[in-house]
Amino acid sequence: MPEHAEPTRRYSYLGPAGTFTEAALKQVPEAAGQEWNPVANLGEALNDVVTGFSDAAMIAIENSIDGGVTVAQDALATIPGLRIVGEYLVPVRFVLVARPGTGLEDIAVVSGHPVAYGQCRAWLDDQVPRHRHLPATSNVQAAADLFDSEKSIDAAIAPPGIEEHYDVEVLAEGIAENPDAVTRFVLVSRTAPVGEPTGADKTSLIAELPEDRAGALLEMLEQFATRGVNLTLLASRPIGDRMGRYRFVIDAEGHVKDERVADALLGLKRFSPRVVFLGSYPRADRVAATVRDAHDDDAFRDARDWLREVIEGVAD
Amino acid sequence: MPEHAEPTRRYSYLGPAGTFTEAALKQVPEAAGQEWNPVANLGEALNDVVTGFSDAAMIAIENSIDGGVTVAQDALATIPGLRIVGEYLVPVRFVLVARPGTGLEDIAVVSGHPVAYGQCRAWLDDQVPRHRHLPATSNVQAAADLFDSEKSIDAAIAPPGIEEHYDVEVLAEGIAENPDAVTRFVLVSRTAPVGEPTGADKTSLIAELPEDRAGALLEMLEQFATRGVNLTLLASRPIGDRMGRYRFVIDAEGHVKDERVADALLGLKRFSPRVVFLGSYPRADRVAATVRDAHDDDAFRDARDWLREVIEGVAD
Amino acid sequence: MPEHAEPTRRYSYLGPAGTFTEAALKQVPEAAGQEWNPVANLGEALNDVVTGFSDAAMIAIENSIDGGVTVAQDALATIPGLRIVGEYLVPVRFVLVARPGTGLEDIAVVSGHPVAYGQCRAWLDDQVPRHRHLPATSNVQAAADLFDSEKSIDAAIAPPGIEEHYDVEVLAEGIAENPDAVTRFVLVSRTAPVGEPTGADKTSLIAELPEDRAGALLEMLEQFATRGVNLTLLASRPIGDRMGRYRFVIDAEGHVKDERVADALLGLKRFSPRVVFLGSYPRADRVAATVRDAHDDDAFRDARDWLREVIEGVAD
Amino acid sequence: MPEHAEPTRRYSYLGPAGTFTEAALKQVPEAAGQEWNPVANLGEALNDVVTGFSDAAMIAIENSIDGGVTVAQDALATIPGLRIVGEYLVPVRFVLVARPGTGLEDIAVVSGHPVAYGQCRAWLDDQVPRHRHLPATSNVQAAADLFDSEKSIDAAIAPPGIEEHYDVEVLAEGIAENPDAVTRFVLVSRTAPVGEPTGADKTSLIAELPEDRAGALLEMLEQFATRGVNLTLLASRPIGDRMGRYRFVIDAEGHVKDERVADALLGLKRFSPRVVFLGSYPRADRVAATVRDAHDDDAFRDARDWLREVIEGVAD
Repeated sequence: MPEHAEPTRRYSYLGPAGTFTEAALKQVPEAAGQEWNPVANLGEALNDVVTGFSDAAMIAIENSIDGGVTVAQDALATIPGLRIVGEYLVPVRFVLVARPGTGLEDIAVVSGHPVAYGQCRAWLDDQVPRHRHLPATSNVQAAADLFDSEKSIDAAIAPPGIEEHYDVEVLAEGIAENPDAVTRFVLVSRTAPVGEPTGADKTSLIAELPEDRAGALLEMLEQFATRGVNLTLLASRPIGDRMGRYRFVIDAEGHVKDERVADALLGLKRFSPRVVFLGSYPRADRVAATVRDAHDDDAFRDARDWLREVIEGVAD
Repeated sequence: MPEHAEPTRRYSYLGPAGTFTEAALKQVPEAAGQEWNPVANLGEALNDVVTGFSDAAMIAIENSIDGGVTVAQDALATIPGLRIVGEYLVPVRFVLVARPGTGLEDIAVVSGHPVAYGQCRAWLDDQVPRHRHLPATSNVQAAADLFDSEKSIDAAIAPPGIEEHYDVEVLAEGIAENPDAVTRFVLVSRTAPVGEPTGADKTSLIAELPEDRAGALLEMLEQFATRGVNLTLLASRPIGDRMGRYRFVIDAEGHVKDERVADALLGLKRFSPRVVFLGSYPRADRVAATVRDAHDDDAFRDARDWLREVIEGVAD
Repeated sequence: MPEHAEPTRRYSYLGPAGTFTEAALKQVPEAAGQEWNPVANLGEALNDVVTGFSDAAMIAIENSIDGGVTVAQDALATIPGLRIVGEYLVPVRFVLVARPGTGLEDIAVVSGHPVAYGQCRAWLDDQVPRHRHLPATSNVQAAADLFDSEKSIDAAIAPPGIEEHYDVEVLAEGIAENPDAVTRFVLVSRTAPVGEPTGADKTSLIAELPEDRAGALLEMLEQFATRGVNLTLLASRPIGDRMGRYRFVIDAEGHVKDERVADALLGLKRFSPRVVFLGSYPRADRVAATVRDAHDDDAFRDARDWLREVIEGVAD
Repeated sequence: MPEHAEPTRRYSYLGPAGTFTEAALKQVPEAAGQEWNPVANLGEALNDVVTGFSDAAMIAIENSIDGGVTVAQDALATIPGLRIVGEYLVPVRFVLVARPGTGLEDIAVVSGHPVAYGQCRAWLDDQVPRHRHLPATSNVQAAADLFDSEKSIDAAIAPPGIEEHYDVEVLAEGIAENPDAVTRFVLVSRTAPVGEPTGADKTSLIAELPEDRAGALLEMLEQFATRGVNLTLLASRPIGDRMGRYRFVIDAEGHVKDERVADALLGLKRFSPRVVFLGSYPRADRVAATVRDAHDDDAFRDARDWLREVIEGVAD
């Protein structure tokens, strides 16, 4: 290590090496050459950030097939002091692997993460009709378990490239149902000042509805609609105190430093008994928000100028 | 006149003495003892203000029976440099008067302002079935015209108390259809700094709709609804360039210095291609606006504080 | 007259010959060759229909400069048993006429219907700066009054062609401010079965708002918006019992026999404490309504078929 | 068996005996004394119904802590020919069990269904800080696995009463975080005619949004709001073809044979490119919907009567 080196940054991620989460972390330029800390689960990853052990954690937040990673959504909704600072997309492709010498006809038990299994089930039902599924904590772990005699696994669902890490043979590629499946990851740090807008940003929020009136969800959505802020995600999650009470996980187009988003957040804050700001960050797909003239920053500034002049009596 | 007297203020109003407009002006404490300038019509009254000849003008703006005084609404929408600074209600009651010696059975032609005539028509149709109506520019003028031989008038619809100004006999009282009828007047000055809120205020606006989309009126109304601002008046007036294009005359509960009203006006300004602020002023009926907690000034300040902290990274 | 002639139909209209109302009636093919009954005012025209004296009446309902003819709107809102069966547009152009030999410099008093005077006022203020205005009940009457020595009129605002009816000279043409001004007329009959849609229709309604909740106007407009029904007119008129209570005059695109309009009317009827259906009739401008697929008749029929099958258990 | 016995009905449920699903099935009066078929997973249960092997299947659909059972929601959204015919709530309580003689200090590996584990995790982290979790397919299975030496499990999260089925000792009771936690089950049959309303019903739907416009979710929710239909659940699920495309799982108050619900469904069907009707059935909590007068069946019938009379020309 050189004498005056910058302090190393540490990134936690769901390991081991070879996971999709690692693939997401590889997309982060700032993480190159820093310390990567593989962990066993989401709780550990976020705990590393909360305690300051790691500077950031990469976590899966949504899958185009299975939907929101609810445990991650709930963790972000309830653990204070966290911020999303980046978003990354990783294509979801699976291979079926086994110990060398195994054929499709030899397979009785297939291991794999339940989400991966769900995506590969159609293929497995067709090609290995009498298999049983043994859940694994990660797909890389499923492959590793092939060599754990206690597990009695015959095949594993694993990410492409797994053969570089384990002595396995690939029996089939592209076994997931949807070739366009993708998982959305977010990079989470401790709460810190928000970065600058890039023009293609997303803002993540958690909000609860007031209980005292019908139509509250409509009213909440209008906070965004009246400011021309589109939502890319609206998911409901139980608050947990009793059946029928939900909080909402919201991804909105734009950055909190965009006037229209700030104004929508002010409206949301006044309306909602509880709002959590999870972060404004560049979108993975780099698609700029479409903003009508009436909702751009100039419109907000012009309106403020006008209102000030109206009150001062120098404009009508 | 004392040596160091304050300069006299001049108020224009639809005269002559005895009109409902004069009754409205009598409700203005500041106008007592100042110069009152009777004029012949609305245009003259507003012109006095625009030119600086008068300090303010009292004009009728709405009648609970006949609706908006459209010529006044249109004047306020199109003449720059005017502000509404007060609102006054005058009960509308009418008497039927004639030259001494005239009986109901002698009446062929009844004079009266068209609005007054509309309100008294049911009574006249019943009691003087074969009368004809001759429009007058004011009801006091109608009474005066009884003594103009060129006019050939037999009776006049006039405000109570007219017999104190003219040598007439009251043939019938309370001849208007609705005993609760009332006319709303506004006191108009040149544009000046807006006064302070009283807690029971009204804000008057003119707004045009953007042309490029359906549902624009709904969208405009949502600017108020999402901020919890109730409207007491929404009237459409043709812009005049072609059939089907309207501007809207809006009275909103609250004062432009109330946060929720200011925010609604900012939203309206961004949305609308043309907004005219006509003034924030105490309501004639002194009814305080009902404001939900989510829309009071504290909610606005708290939300701004929260947003600033969120951006600075000292709150979630 | 042939022996077995069809019974003659009678049409009432604001006369005398030469008025804009007569020009509207001339646009009605069915009225050609029938009996035309000139009347003195709106009340007389509608009374002719209510009593069965006339089969229909042509009345002015809106002016592109002055807005709704409120007395006509109020009459349709309160007189039962009437239906609008047609709509007609008449360009509003005015000439200034006088007795032969009169010059502009000789004019002191100008007569004209107040609406016409409003539209010509800018020209008159400029060209005849010191004129006074004497209101007339119609512009044709104003011209006629030139020859009534009691009226002391020097000039009259009148419709083009007036010189064919009266011995007047045209001093100026096109004196109205807006060359595109137009008046909208409707043909009114007694209540009868609604005609068939033409694809370019309009439906006129009167509706009151429920009093028990805020946002009622928004809710009423959503009855139309959720069915994709655009409004071409929304005007508020005082109900008349007290200040601040309004009914709304509504013109909607489409015909009550169009599924989307029928559905919106059903929603409106359930919502509103009072709805008056004034008629579905061909639009004067023959502009077909733009209807999204989701709102056309097929979509309504398909949805009903689906719902029936769902209830019967033969569809999901 | 008596000679003329009714044919036995068969119910599939997630077994083995002792599961919460069995507890839900015990709430079904019609299931008493019929054949109960324990199955290993949701897919098997629904397949039994689709193939006609079973008459109905009891499945978990939502948990007050963990939210929707997404695999069940997705199955109902994609498998045709199914109907929800009943709803049942089962309190979620857990005990920690082990082989006789085991103490808390002996526990290294805890088995349990992932959802159950999530709810007991706080207690486990506190009382058994260094445990590891091994997922099981059901909590009863977790208890059974205590006696499978290959699994190396020390303790299991299981439902109360498990000791009646297995030779286990209860180490702790009430270990779930929320004592009010409840799981919602639905009874699913093949598509059949919808039953009659009970006054306290729920209607389940799946709907996709049209892609061609912003604000589509707001527009969908307004289909319900304008008919006064409250939603008890709105959950988004990825359609699966690409990131950002969602279908919505909707539970609405009321029965498809309630007029307001039928009307909302007609609106939804016209609006949405794909709607699946999953059923109208009595609510587990027997709470009657609150319906404003404007939305009750009478209001719908009255409006239809009025519209018919309006079209026939016998009403205004």
